[in-house]
Order: sequence, then C-alpha cells, then structure tokens
Amino acid sequence: MARIVQKYGGTSVGDVERIKKVAERVKASRDDGNELVVVVSARAGVTNELIARAKALTPTPADRELDQLLAVGEQETIALTAIALHGVGVDAVSYTGAQAGIFTDKVHTKAKIRTINPQSVEKDLKAGRVVIVAGFQGINDDGQVTTLGRGGSDLTAIALAAALKADKCEIYTDVDGVYTADPRVVKTARKIEEISYDEMLELASSGSKVMQSRSVEFAKKFGVVFEVRSSFNHNPGTIVKEEVAYMERVVVRGVAVDKDQAKVVVSNILDKPGSAARVFRALADASVLVDMIVQNIGRQGVANLTFTVPRTDTHKAQRALEPILAAIGGGSVTILDNIAKLSVVGVGMKTHSGVAATLFQSLADAGINIELISTSEIKISVVIDQARADDAARVAHTAFGLDNH
Amino acid sequence: MARIVQKYGGTSVGDVERIKKVAERVKASRDDGNELVVVVSARAGVTNELIARAKALTPTPADRELDQLLAVGEQETIALTAIALHGVGVDAVSYTGAQAGIFTDKVHTKAKIRTINPQSVEKDLKAGRVVIVAGFQGINDDGQVTTLGRGGSDLTAIALAAALKADKCEIYTDVDGVYTADPRVVKTARKIEEISYDEMLELASSGSKVMQSRSVEFAKKFGVVFEVRSSFNHNPGTIVKEEVAYMERVVVRGVAVDKDQAKVVVSNILDKPGSAARVFRALADASVLVDMIVQNIGRQGVANLTFTVPRTDTHKAQRALEPILAAIGGGSVTILDNIAKLSVVGVGMKTHSGVAATLFQSLADAGINIELISTSEIKISVVIDQARADDAARVAHTAFGLDNH
Repeated sequence: MARIVQKYGGTSVGDVERIKKVAERVKASRDDGNELVVVVSARAGVTNELIARAKALTPTPADRELDQLLAVGEQETIALTAIALHGVGVDAVSYTGAQAGIFTDKVHTKAKIRTINPQSVEKDLKAGRVVIVAGFQGINDDGQVTTLGRGGSDLTAIALAAALKADKCEIYTDVDGVYTADPRVVKTARKIEEISYDEMLELASSGSKVMQSRSVEFAKKFGVVFEVRSSFNHNPGTIVKEEVAYMERVVVRGVAVDKDQAKVVVSNILDKPGSAARVFRALADASVLVDMIVQNIGRQGVANLTFTVPRTDTHKAQRALEPILAAIGGGSVTILDNIAKLSVVGVGMKTHSGVAATLFQSLADAGINIELISTSEIKISVVIDQARADDAARVAHTAFGLDNH
Repeated sequence: MARIVQKYGGTSVGDVERIKKVAERVKASRDDGNELVVVVSARAGVTNELIARAKALTPTPADRELDQLLAVGEQETIALTAIALHGVGVDAVSYTGAQAGIFTDKVHTKAKIRTINPQSVEKDLKAGRVVIVAGFQGINDDGQVTTLGRGGSDLTAIALAAALKADKCEIYTDVDGVYTADPRVVKTARKIEEISYDEMLELASSGSKVMQSRSVEFAKKFGVVFEVRSSFNHNPGTIVKEEVAYMERVVVRGVAVDKDQAKVVVSNILDKPGSAARVFRALADASVLVDMIVQNIGRQGVANLTFTVPRTDTHKAQRALEPILAAIGGGSVTILDNIAKLSVVGVGMKTHSGVAATLFQSLADAGINIELISTSEIKISVVIDQARADDAARVAHTAFGLDNH
C-alpha cells in the first residue's frame, strides 16, 4: 500500500463525463490498496469565464474579490469529483483549500503556501476515505480566501505530498509526459522516462510548458518525487526526481524553444560604471523580467546593451527606459520581436565538454545565425531568427542524439 | 442614518447587467447615508445547473457534497456584487456564510441557523464598507459548509437583520410586494401596504409564493420588520410587521389559492380509538405533510377520513397507508388530485363574525361546491374543484371588498 497524491488539471475534469473517467481511475488505484488524496483544478474554461464576468463589471477587479470569485471553480470540481466517486462505490470527501488546512501569506491572486495543517485530511485517510482537495486555493490568517496564481493546482498537489509524506505524487495532464522536444515540431522527439528537478526547471524556464517552475522548485526543496502523465491513457509518464549518477550519461536531456521573448537593444550608452545598473534598475522598478543579457563594446567608450524580455512586456520596457536614456548618454532603444530562444538542457553537460561547439556547429551547418548566447551549468541558450526556430530545434535534437529510432 | 439589510434574489442578480443595477441601487441607499449589508442569492438557474451536474454523476448525491457544491453559486455572486460596487466607487467587501459567522446545525441541505457571530461584519460596517453576504449558506461546528434549504437567502437576510439589530430589512424580488390575490388571476387585486406576520404566514402556507414560512416565522420571533419589494422598479413594497390595532379594521387581508394539493380519502375505517392515529403515524413516518383533515362518520361504526397532502406526495401516501388498511378495518384509499384549496386570511377575522358565511354564500352564488372546510383564528380554507379555483378567488376577492377601484 502506498500513499499517493494525484492531481487532475482542468482538461481532465472538463465535464461530467471526464469527471466520471477520473473517478474510475481513482477507484482503480484505490482498489490496488493505495491511500489517495486527489487534487483537482477548475473545469477548463471556468476560471476564464469568471474573470470575464468580473471584468465586465469593472476593468480592474480587486484582488481580494477575484480570489473569492475564482475559488468557486475548484470548489465545484471537488464536490462533483466526490459525488462521482460515491457513484462508483468509493467513500470520498471533498475539502476546500481552507478545510484542507492550506495556509498562505496575504498576497491575493499569487499567494505563497506558508504551512499545511493536514490533520483533518489524515483523519479521513485513516478512516479509509479518498480525500479530494481543491487545488489553487488556500486561506490566510485573517480567514480570507487566497489563490496561488498560475500553476497553483500543481503546487497544491506537491505541497500536500510533502506535508502528508506521500510516497508519490502523480500530476495528470493532457500530455503523456516531458519530451526531448515539442513533438508537434520535432517528429522524432521521445518521451523522457526520468528527469532531474534541475533539468525540469531549465526546460520550464526555456519555454517547455508542462509545469510552472515554482512547483518544480517546491518539489526539489522538499524532495517530492512526482510523475507527469496523461489522464487520457495509461502510458507511464515522466518521473521527476533528484539527480542520480546515471542521469549524467545523457549529455543533453532535451531541447526547448521559447517564441514569447523579444530582444531589446539599448545602443550607444556611455561605457562607464553605473550605466547598466541604471538600465536594469529602471526595468526592475517597472516589473519587467529580464532573461538573457549581453553587453558588447561598440565604438570607443560607447556600448550596446542587449537583453531579452517577455514579448508582452516590450511596451513597458520601452516606457521604463526612455526617461533614463539622456542620463546614460542619449542612446536609443530598439525592440525586435521576431526572435526565438533555443535551449539545450542536461545535467550531463557539467561533465562533458564540447556541448556548445556541437550546438553552434549544427546551427551553422543549417545556415542559422546566432544573435545572442547565454549559458548556465546545465543549459545553453541561443537567440535566433524566429522563422528558423523549428528547424533549429530539429537539427539540435539530431545533433545530440535524441532522435527516436 | 439607518442600518439596512437588503436581500436580492436570483433573478435580481441573474447576469452582470443586473448585478450592475443592484450595485447602483445599493450605491443610492449608501449615498443617502445608510449602513448596508447586502445578502445575495446565486444567479438564477445556477443552482439547478449544479444539481443537474451532480445527478449526472449519481442519482442521489450525498447531502454533504451537495452543500459543498451549491455554496458555489452564492460565492460567485457575492464576489461579483462587491466588484460591481467597486466599479461604481463604493467600498465593499464580500463574505461567505462561514466568513459572516453564520453557524448552523449539522443537517446538510436544510440546516437551521443556530447563531450568528457578526463581529467581522460589524467591523467592516464601522469602517464604512458595504458588506455583501452569501445567502442560503452557513458553516457547522465541524467546519463543513451547510445550506439552509428553500428560501434560505431570505432567512439569511432576516437572521442577519436580527443579529445586527438592523433598522430595516428589504427583500428585493421580482414582484412588487404582497397582493390581495394573485394579480394574474384576479385582475382587481391590490398591493398590500402593510401586513402582519401572522397574515403573511397564513398566506404563505396557503399557496401565496412570495416567501417561505420559515423566514416569516424567524422575523416574527425576533421582531424584524421587513419590506418585500421589486428590484426592477422603485415602487414601495409591502411592509411585514407585528400586528397593530388598525390592521383589524380590515377583515380579510387577502385571498390565496393552492393548486398543488391532492385529496386523500381513507374510507370505511373502523370508528374506534386509535384508527386515525395509526393513519397519521404511518404518514408521518413516511414524511408526508398533511394539511386539512376532516373525519365524518358514515354508516354505523364506520368512518371516512379525508385530508389533503402535497400532490407530489400522493404515491408516498398511498404506499404508506396500504400496509395498515387491514388493521384499521379494511377500508380503501382514494386519491383525487383535481382539487384546489382557497383561503381567505386576515387578523380582522378574530373580531368580526360572519366571515365564513360571506365566503360560503359567495361561492354558492357562483355555483362552486365546497368539499372540505378548515379554519384557524385568522384563516378559512375550503377545498373546491380545481377547474373553478380562479373563479372562486375572484368572487371571494369581490365579496370581501378587496377589489381595486
């Protein structure tokens, strides 16, 4: 008998038929003798509907009321899932975030979990019940409903798995697991059986959208082993865990493409101490997330500063930078949004040399120009022309021996 | 400045446009300097949608999970109403039943309010905020969500008005108030300006569907004066309050027709002590509500027992009675469902004689036969042919001088 936390996303519980399927899957695991906690999201589309109604009333709804509103989505699903389990003869009970003892800080719409008090859940598990918990939501010390922001239901599942000392956490979604590349682009992409937290984190930050980084970081911090798998079939998924020695035999674990970035060039700034600091201070004050940064000296005493930002933030970046341009030497701000970021990720890189050379050569052979380069211990990223991004993913995938045979 | 509890039903908050209208009405009362608590129901139709989803999963969903599910409807509306108020510049904050301190017993789907702890609500009122409270729901001592059953939002409003010592409670609905008869049937019906709790209770139990009896009983018990009025116009409604002397000058306050009853005749039962008791014990055990009861002796030593039950319960009544028929003398059970109950109600009846005579004469003049009669201190009810019910309402309305001029 194992203690398992399962999490089903919005597509998996999208309507009553799908909720029935979830109930059957939960029952099967229960019949195998497992203790089960099931975390569910709102039905797909419900959260957006609720936000649309709120915005029809006022353009910027208060965060506290948005949380009160959005928590409704998951509360519906927990009750329906419990009812579906009763329908197949499984004893089950639903818990809102507050009832499950998920306490957060007071930052509405993107609260952080402070602590979980799993006493009631433990009691129902001991009584032989399947416990259904609302994902994405918690309660703060004032008794206010909070929500955890994007990817919040994954976080609920992983945090509960840690608090309940679960043997395993299963994240059910609409894909089969984590792939060596996006299978829609790279036809030879393979599903990865096991991946380290760090590799998963680098893939997430490089545009592979299976899970938000914060959930993976939380799992890493508390050593929660989890499996990403599909709720629509019974294929094994991808297991995410601490790095083990054999993982280093694979140099590159996967290739990711991020097309949601733009490149910003601040040209002709004075090459003196403090210029770059002023630029990034201005961007930070405007809450613009900066990713890759390169500074190259141009003419004498004058530099170009190049970096990438989320495409949605380009106007914010421009507005933040224009007021300080004069002070740093009167340069101009140029925005290029027809770029893409290609990343190769793998813990094996740490002990293998020549990864950069292999990547750059494969792109050169395909006639793809590299505009920016940035490296971390287990990742190399390059900025290239967006029109060539899919080609680049394919040639890199082949160059690192990832192709399916 | 007055402290007012307003309650808006499902039709009044049916969509975002109507919620905006509610916000404007609340703002107007706020601008007049009033302290406001606003109780809202789920959007019209939402509760039925949720029940349909639950029943698609299993025919008889567990009550605890139904409550968890249905509470979602009001939680959506409170947040949207608060957001709408922010949109028109009014400081407002939403409360679930639990957050508002509405504690109930443990009977899911038809919980009774045990106590209200209004401290948080008081604090927000003192801070100048409009407080929006979810109707229909509460929390029990185990932290489980409960719902109050039919008419629950009215009950929330009246109970809050009592707990907060409000000056007034306004029940907004889709009708202009309480009428002397159903205006769709009796064209000359008039809106009643003031009515006593007892008259309102007798009208409610006689088929006038403006409010459930339990809310009126609660208001009577705690002396909460409330007004029933429309959220779609600014006409004054009907004020419901303790009986005052001048109310007795009106002999009959209103005429109500109930077409949802059926007549049950248990014939030829032994006329000996205990027979009637066995009949009504069997019905009570089957949870069948019995309304009017008449026993008339037929042939020697043999009696007929006639009573009315809700039409939806006729099969239950038949099943409950058949096993005991032999024991009480082998009579038969006959069910007639083409009947209607006509009631005339008024506190003035207590001090005026001849009300029964006037009613019976007016029906006789119209050729309407009376099958059963039952009286209380302030009500006379008769069972008649359902096909003549509307005619009966009109002639009684005229006979008691209620017609609009």
